[in-house]
Amino acid sequence: MKLIRFGESGNEKPGVLINGERKDLSSVFQDWDRQFFQNDGLKILKEYIKNPSVFPTIDDAERWGACVARPGKVICIGLNYSDHAAESGMAIPEEPIIFQKGSNTVVGPFDNILIPRNSVKTDWEVELGVVISKDARYLNSVEDAKDYIAGYCTSHDVSERAFQLERGGQWTKGKSCDNFNPLGPYLSTTDEVANVQNLKMSLSVNGVQKQTGNTSFMIFDVYHVIHHLSQFMTLEAGDIINTGTPPGVGLGFDPPQYLKEGDVVELEIEGLGSQKQSCINA
Amino acid sequence: MKLIRFGESGNEKPGVLINGERKDLSSVFQDWDRQFFQNDGLKILKEYIKNPSVFPTIDDAERWGACVARPGKVICIGLNYSDHAAESGMAIPEEPIIFQKGSNTVVGPFDNILIPRNSVKTDWEVELGVVISKDARYLNSVEDAKDYIAGYCTSHDVSERAFQLERGGQWTKGKSCDNFNPLGPYLSTTDEVANVQNLKMSLSVNGVQKQTGNTSFMIFDVYHVIHHLSQFMTLEAGDIINTGTPPGVGLGFDPPQYLKEGDVVELEIEGLGSQKQSCINA
Repeated sequence: MKLIRFGESGNEKPGVLINGERKDLSSVFQDWDRQFFQNDGLKILKEYIKNPSVFPTIDDAERWGACVARPGKVICIGLNYSDHAAESGMAIPEEPIIFQKGSNTVVGPFDNILIPRNSVKTDWEVELGVVISKDARYLNSVEDAKDYIAGYCTSHDVSERAFQLERGGQWTKGKSCDNFNPLGPYLSTTDEVANVQNLKMSLSVNGVQKQTGNTSFMIFDVYHVIHHLSQFMTLEAGDIINTGTPPGVGLGFDPPQYLKEGDVVELEIEGLGSQKQSCINA
Repeated sequence: MKLIRFGESGNEKPGVLINGERKDLSSVFQDWDRQFFQNDGLKILKEYIKNPSVFPTIDDAERWGACVARPGKVICIGLNYSDHAAESGMAIPEEPIIFQKGSNTVVGPFDNILIPRNSVKTDWEVELGVVISKDARYLNSVEDAKDYIAGYCTSHDVSERAFQLERGGQWTKGKSCDNFNPLGPYLSTTDEVANVQNLKMSLSVNGVQKQTGNTSFMIFDVYHVIHHLSQFMTLEAGDIINTGTPPGVGLGFDPPQYLKEGDVVELEIEGLGSQKQSCINA
């Protein structure tokens, strides 16, 4: 299944993408949120959409929202691709580096990127997003992690490098600016993704390819990350994990390249759909 | 006004503390959450409690919940007391250091502290907590910040120092463990706090005084912090800011002292009430 959300920002409704059509499921479900995932909502949804024609088709003009509701937490894994660690001038981590983004950064896949005021180093990062299906705490094994995943999506971990790296050492400041986490266009449930550790990733700016990568090059794979996180905190149903970015971010160019008003960013993960954002000043 | 919440974890109801009694306001209000604060709820509440006797008194046996609903964000300011920076062996920051805790760490003021599995360095931090009253974005001046504060409370920023400082450099890992942010017992609205920058703070472990301080020693005061944060992210109504801890944390002792099962922590901020937690293993 491919879960989507649609409608104006802050008032999105839940739907699915099926046979290329967006279907409105808001007559049955409130939202794709913690409660939905935690209460086995995916199983119930599967029954409902066996006959998709009963649900109204969503008008093409309707905005695409983030593919899941605002989560309790957005957890990010830093430097999880060895090539990206190298281009950032940082050591390959011995264990996953964890930081958080504000959950209010999550926006739709075609919403604008807001260049923060006083920013000169707004940068891009295509990432595999993972959505948690039920509360995960102290998982016994890496293999157990697979039972805690609702699905996967394309995620854009927009970053302001000066705020992130030159303002005190903790990264939050450059990661939680408004609109800094476009998510979607859809959440693919796990059954739709044959091998999550073999998905091509790409990102272009103004039509010029910048990032290319493959999830096969993650240092810590998805199951490892979830198991690891669960040793430190409870991952809750609906939480989002951004699993790190491959090489080709603006910081890694010589000289570095950053986003400015008018730029257009397009990003895609194989099988998980593509995003497109225009940059405007906040 | 003093806002409280009561009842079992995850199903708390809103109330107020008035003339030493806890009053149940759940017949009128759903919760002390983003919606409440954003929609001028404090003004409406003030009218309702002019005649507090019409509201039922809460049974003394009822658990105290966190004084506000689970927020969108918990933002923390690192090393915001010069003496604490010194005892941590870190430089005095040139601007506020920002990091986040998971919002699911927020629990009641008398709930247990859970010592995480594999933890040997669980530490204490009494802090002034600030709750945001309306969305704050790009405030024009430090003075403007005062219009965005719902109130103040005692906050316990429990920290695992090995997870925080020895596991990759980003602090989140040692800050977002379950139950790591007892909050309350009550939220004092701003009118009840004559000078927020002159409040005594203290924390003891098993009856032995460990931290003493005063909010007058903050490097960046509350208004400065809010103005600063608003330049990087939207602070939303109901968000919580932990404004840093004074000297006397376990890490600062020689040799360091850490919490273990059976320890009892008591902490207090002048006028904002006291907390008490027992430590148990997670």
